[in-house]
Amino acid sequence: MAKVTIIMGSKSDLDSLKGAFDTLKQFDVSFTARILSAHRTPDEAADVAKNAEKNGTSVFICAAGMAAHLAGVIAAHTICPVIGIPMASAPFNGLDSLLAMVQMPPGIPVATVTAGSAGGKNAALLAVEMLAMNDKALAARLLEFRKAQAAKVLADDAALQAQLA
Amino acid sequence: MAKVTIIMGSKSDLDSLKGAFDTLKQFDVSFTARILSAHRTPDEAADVAKNAEKNGTSVFICAAGMAAHLAGVIAAHTICPVIGIPMASAPFNGLDSLLAMVQMPPGIPVATVTAGSAGGKNAALLAVEMLAMNDKALAARLLEFRKAQAAKVLADDAALQAQLA
Amino acid sequence: MAKVTIIMGSKSDLDSLKGAFDTLKQFDVSFTARILSAHRTPDEAADVAKNAEKNGTSVFICAAGMAAHLAGVIAAHTICPVIGIPMASAPFNGLDSLLAMVQMPPGIPVATVTAGSAGGKNAALLAVEMLAMNDKALAARLLEFRKAQAAKVLADDAALQAQLA
Amino acid sequence: MAKVTIIMGSKSDLDSLKGAFDTLKQFDVSFTARILSAHRTPDEAADVAKNAEKNGTSVFICAAGMAAHLAGVIAAHTICPVIGIPMASAPFNGLDSLLAMVQMPPGIPVATVTAGSAGGKNAALLAVEMLAMNDKALAARLLEFRKAQAAKVLADDAALQAQLA
Amino acid sequence: MAKVTIIMGSKSDLDSLKGAFDTLKQFDVSFTARILSAHRTPDEAADVAKNAEKNGTSVFICAAGMAAHLAGVIAAHTICPVIGIPMASAPFNGLDSLLAMVQMPPGIPVATVTAGSAGGKNAALLAVEMLAMNDKALAARLLEFRKAQAAKVLADDAALQAQLA
Amino acid sequence: MAKVTIIMGSKSDLDSLKGAFDTLKQFDVSFTARILSAHRTPDEAADVAKNAEKNGTSVFICAAGMAAHLAGVIAAHTICPVIGIPMASAPFNGLDSLLAMVQMPPGIPVATVTAGSAGGKNAALLAVEMLAMNDKALAARLLEFRKAQAAKVLADDAALQAQLA
Amino acid sequence: MAKVTIIMGSKSDLDSLKGAFDTLKQFDVSFTARILSAHRTPDEAADVAKNAEKNGTSVFICAAGMAAHLAGVIAAHTICPVIGIPMASAPFNGLDSLLAMVQMPPGIPVATVTAGSAGGKNAALLAVEMLAMNDKALAARLLEFRKAQAAKVLADDAALQAQLA
Amino acid sequence: MAKVTIIMGSKSDLDSLKGAFDTLKQFDVSFTARILSAHRTPDEAADVAKNAEKNGTSVFICAAGMAAHLAGVIAAHTICPVIGIPMASAPFNGLDSLLAMVQMPPGIPVATVTAGSAGGKNAALLAVEMLAMNDKALAARLLEFRKAQAAKVLADDAALQAQLA
Repeated sequence: MAKVTIIMGSKSDLDSLKGAFDTLKQFDVSFTARILSAHRTPDEAADVAKNAEKNGTSVFICAAGMAAHLAGVIAAHTICPVIGIPMASAPFNGLDSLLAMVQMPPGIPVATVTAGSAGGKNAALLAVEMLAMNDKALAARLLEFRKAQAAKVLADDAALQAQLA
Repeated sequence: MAKVTIIMGSKSDLDSLKGAFDTLKQFDVSFTARILSAHRTPDEAADVAKNAEKNGTSVFICAAGMAAHLAGVIAAHTICPVIGIPMASAPFNGLDSLLAMVQMPPGIPVATVTAGSAGGKNAALLAVEMLAMNDKALAARLLEFRKAQAAKVLADDAALQAQLA
Repeated sequence: MAKVTIIMGSKSDLDSLKGAFDTLKQFDVSFTARILSAHRTPDEAADVAKNAEKNGTSVFICAAGMAAHLAGVIAAHTICPVIGIPMASAPFNGLDSLLAMVQMPPGIPVATVTAGSAGGKNAALLAVEMLAMNDKALAARLLEFRKAQAAKVLADDAALQAQLA
Repeated sequence: MAKVTIIMGSKSDLDSLKGAFDTLKQFDVSFTARILSAHRTPDEAADVAKNAEKNGTSVFICAAGMAAHLAGVIAAHTICPVIGIPMASAPFNGLDSLLAMVQMPPGIPVATVTAGSAGGKNAALLAVEMLAMNDKALAARLLEFRKAQAAKVLADDAALQAQLA
Repeated sequence: MAKVTIIMGSKSDLDSLKGAFDTLKQFDVSFTARILSAHRTPDEAADVAKNAEKNGTSVFICAAGMAAHLAGVIAAHTICPVIGIPMASAPFNGLDSLLAMVQMPPGIPVATVTAGSAGGKNAALLAVEMLAMNDKALAARLLEFRKAQAAKVLADDAALQAQLA
Repeated sequence: MAKVTIIMGSKSDLDSLKGAFDTLKQFDVSFTARILSAHRTPDEAADVAKNAEKNGTSVFICAAGMAAHLAGVIAAHTICPVIGIPMASAPFNGLDSLLAMVQMPPGIPVATVTAGSAGGKNAALLAVEMLAMNDKALAARLLEFRKAQAAKVLADDAALQAQLA
Repeated sequence: MAKVTIIMGSKSDLDSLKGAFDTLKQFDVSFTARILSAHRTPDEAADVAKNAEKNGTSVFICAAGMAAHLAGVIAAHTICPVIGIPMASAPFNGLDSLLAMVQMPPGIPVATVTAGSAGGKNAALLAVEMLAMNDKALAARLLEFRKAQAAKVLADDAALQAQLA
Repeated sequence: MAKVTIIMGSKSDLDSLKGAFDTLKQFDVSFTARILSAHRTPDEAADVAKNAEKNGTSVFICAAGMAAHLAGVIAAHTICPVIGIPMASAPFNGLDSLLAMVQMPPGIPVATVTAGSAGGKNAALLAVEMLAMNDKALAARLLEFRKAQAAKVLADDAALQAQLA
C-alpha cells in the first residue's frame, strides 16, 4: 500500500524521475513506481488507475514525453488527483508534451508541473502538499523543507557577499 | 457495417467534420460517426476500437482538440489505420492538438492530417485512398476526383486570364 | 472559513472564472474569491497566502494572464497546493501565462491546468479531487459527476446515431 | 515489384530511416528506397509517383526536412496513400518540416507521423496497417507485434518492481 | 510577353495580391497572373516555370498558404528568381507557410518576403528592384517612389507635430 | 552603498552574469550582487527592493530563468527602474523566461533585455545609460565605449578586406 | 525641449500609444511625439537620435511592429536609454516585433516592455522611473501612483467580497 | 568593383558564410565582403548602401543574427535587391533573426532565404539568379549547376539502389 503511484511511459524516463523518488523518500511518503504505456499497454494503465482505492493510492504522478497521453488516460479512470510531468525529448523539447498534458478538456483535469527533469522534484512536492492537507506531521516537514531551502539560498547569497567584499 | 468510423471528442466538432461527411458520401463509402471522449467515456471509446473487426471498420478518423488524445487512445486498441484531425480551438489554435496527435511514440502511429476545418476533407480523402488500395472502382473515382479538382483550378485560372486581358 | 480561496489578478478575470465558481457550488465546497495583484498589491497577496491556515484555506486557485506571477507568489508563501489557471489575453494568447505559471523552479510547484476559460472548471475539479482525498462524501459526488458527464457524452452520441440512421 | 516505396530527399536522411527499413523487414513487407529531391530532381520524383501502379507500389513513405515538400509533391502525382516523416534539422528542429508536411491544402492529404528519427518506425507501422487491411496474415503479424511490444513494457515494469522491492 | 509572372495557389488569394498588382501597374512593369496549384495542377505549374524564357518572364512571384509548396515547385523548374509570399490562414496564421517557403534546402532558393497581405506590395517592389538592376528608367522610378514614400511619413509626422502643438 | 543592485535567482546564474559584472567595473559604477529567489526567499527578495533608497540603489538588474518572476517581484516593491535578463535553460531555452519577464501587466514595467548570456552585458549598459542621464562623466565614458566598440568592428572589417585582397 | 521623445514607425500606431501619452501627461513629464520610419525615413530617424542632447531628450520610447527595427536604429545613434514597445499586428501578433526588439546584440541595449497596447502605459512608467532617479518630486508622484493603483485593486476586491457575501 | 557585396554583422558570422563565398567563386561572380554592424557602426553600414552604385554593387547579401536589423538597414539606403540570411544563435536559434528579417514593413522588402548555415549557399545562388537575368553566360552556368546538382542526387540514388539490390 503506497500513497503515491508514479507511472512513467518508458524505462528511459527513470533517470528524469530521480528527483521525484528522492523527494518522496526525504518526506517519508510511501510510493510505488510503474512503467506502463498509455498506447502500448492501455488496459494495464487503465487498471492501475481503476485500482487506486484498492491499492491505497491517493495521488498519481505521471511522466511522459511527446504526445504525452499517459496522465490524461490515468485521470480518465480515477478521481484521485493526477500530477503530470511533461518529459522533454527531441525534436520538440517538451513543447509537445507540455501542451498534450496541460490542455485537458473541461471535466478531467491534470495538474501539470515544470517540464523536463526539474519537474520530478516539483511533482513530488505537489503530491506531498496534497497529502499534507490532512497530515499535520507531513505539513510540519514541508515547513521545515521550505526553511532549509530558503537557508540554502541565503547561504549562497552570504558566500557571494563574502566573495565580492 | 460501415467501412469508416468517424469519432469526434465532442458534439461541438460536428460542424468541422462536414467536409469529411460530404467527401465520404461523394465517394459512396459507408461510414458511421460517433461522439466519444477519450477522457469522459474512455471505456466506450476503447470498445469502439476493440470492436473494429466485428463492426466491419477498416479505417478510423478521429477529430479532437486541445490535448487531443482521442486518436492515440483509439490507435492503442486497434490495428486499423487511425487518421487524426487536430481541431483548432482557443487559445492555442491547434498547435496543442497537432502536437498531441502527431507526436505518437514509436510503436503506435497516428496518420495526422491538416489542422482545423480543412482537415475533415483531407482525412476523408486519405481514408478513401487507403480503401482504394484494394478497390479498383474506388481508385477510378479518386482519379476522376483529382481530374475534376484540377479542372476547377484551371477554370479559375482561365477566368482570371479573361479578366486580366 | 472557506476551503478554497480563488485569487484573480484583475477584475477582468471574473467572467473566465464562472466555471470555477459554478463547479465549486455544484460540489457544495465552500470558497471565497479575491482580487489581488502580485505586482500592484504584493503584500496583500502574500498575506492571503500566509493566513491560509488561519482562514481555513486548504487549496488556492490562482488565475492570471500575461507574465502570470500570481500563482507563484502565492505558492512562495504557503504549503497549501496552489492551482494555476493561465488566462489568455492579446497578443500572445496564453502562451505567456502558461509558461510563466507552469515553469516554476524546483522547490515551489504550481499545479497548472488548461489555459483559457476552460481552465476555470478544471481548476475547481482538481481542487475537489484534492479535498476528496479525505472526504468520502465528496469523493462520492465526484464519482456521480463523472457518471453524469459520461452520460451526457453518450446521449450526444445516441442523438447523432439517431440523426445519421 | 515492392509494395512500399520509401523516398528520402537526401542521402543524409538514410540513418534516420533505419527504423523504417528494419520494421518493414521485420514484417516481411517488400519495399524499395529512393533518394530523390522535390527541388533538385523534380521530374524524377514526379515520375516515381506517376509509375506507382506500374511498379506495384501501394504506399509511399516520404522523409524530408526543412521546407519538406517531398511528400506533397509525390502526393500530387499519385492516389496511393503518402506517409510523411518530418525530419528534424538545425535550426528549427522539425517545426518547419512538420508544418510544411501536415498542412496540405484540401484535396491532397499527406499522412504525417512523428517528427524526427522516431518517425521512421511509425511510418513503416502505418504502412503495414494499411496493407493489413486486406492481408490477414499481415494483420496477424501486427497483432503479434503489438503483444510483443506490450510484453516488453510489462517486463520493464516487472524489473522495476523487483528493483524497488 | 510579361516580365513578372504572379502565381497564386487558389482564387481566394486574389484579394491579398491587390498590393502586388497595384505596385507593378504603378511602376508600369508588365505582368501576368495565374491560378495554379502545386498539388492540384502540378504539371501545369511546372510548365509555367519551364516556359519562363519562352514567355519572357524574368521574375516569378508565388503566393501560397499552409504547406506552401508553390514557390519551391516553381523554383525547381526555372533559374529565374522566385519571390515567395507566405499567405496567412487559420489556424497557424502564416507560421506554416513562412517556414514552408523560406526553409528551402541548399541549391534552390526562394526569396521570401513579409507574410500576409503586406507581402504583396513588398514582393512587387522586390521584383521591380531586380528588374531595375538593368533598367535605369525603372531605377529612377524606384528612387522617386522611395522619396514619395518618405515624404508621406514626414507629412504624417508634421501633422502630428501640428496636432500636439 | 552601490548604485546598481544585481539579483540572481540562483547561484547557477553567476557565470551568465560575468558580462554584467565586467561592464559595470569597466564603467567604474558601484554595484552589489545578491542571490535571492522570488519563490524560495520571497520576503528577503522583497526587502532588498523595499530598502533600495536606504541602500543607495538607483537601478536593479534581475536575472532569472524558467517562470522568471524575480524581476516582477522586485519591481512590485520599488520605483527604481528594474532591468530583467531572461536566463535560458532547458527545455524551453528562454522563451519561458522572456515571456514571464517582459509581459508585465500595465502599471509595473520591467525593462527586459536580450535573453541568455548576451543579456548580462546589455543589462549593465542599460543601467549605465540610465545613470548617465545625470552624470556627464559617465556619459562621456559611454561615448568612448561606443567609439571603441565601433573601432573594433571596423578593425575586423579592415582585417577581412586585407585577407580578401 | 521635451524630456521624453516618443517615436512611432507609422501613423497607425497612434491609438496604441494613447496609454503612453496619458501617463506622461498624468505625471506632468514633457514629451514630444514623432512619426519616423527606420526604413522609409532612416536619416530623419537617425537625426532625431543624434540630436537628443540638443533637444533636451533624456529618454526615447519607440513603438514599432513586424520587423521592429526602430528602437534599435535609434539606440545605435544615442546613449540615452531607449525603451521599445513591440506593436502587435497580423499575422504574427507581436512575436515578430518582440524578438526583433529585445534580442539586441551585445553593446546596444533596448529596454523592451510589454507587447501590444498594454505596452504604452508601461513604457511611459518606465521612462518616469528613469527620470525619477534624479527628481524627488517625480519619485513622490510615482509612489502616489503606486498607492492609487493598489487602492483600485483593493476596491475591486472589496466590491467582490461584498457581492459574494 | 564587385557585383555582390556581402555584409555580416560580426566576425563570428564568417564561417557560416563559407557557402556563399564558395558559390560566388564557383560562378565567377565578383564580390566583396564587409563586417559592419547596424548598431555598432550604423553610419558606415548606411554608407556602404548609399555607395552601391559608385562601387558597382548590384546585389547585397546581409547575414545577421538575433534582432537581425542589418538587412533592413541596408535596404533602407539602397534600391539594389537585398538578400537576408537569418543567422541562428542561442537561445532562440534563428526564430528571432528570421522574423526580424522577413517581416519588413510595406515599402522596403528584404529577400529572405533559409535560416542558418544553409542560407549562405542559397543567398549566393539567389544573387546569381538575379545577375543572370541579364547575363546569358551566367544563366548557362546556372543551368549547368542545376544539372550537376541533379546528377549528384541521381548518383546517390543509384548507389542506394545498388546497395539495396
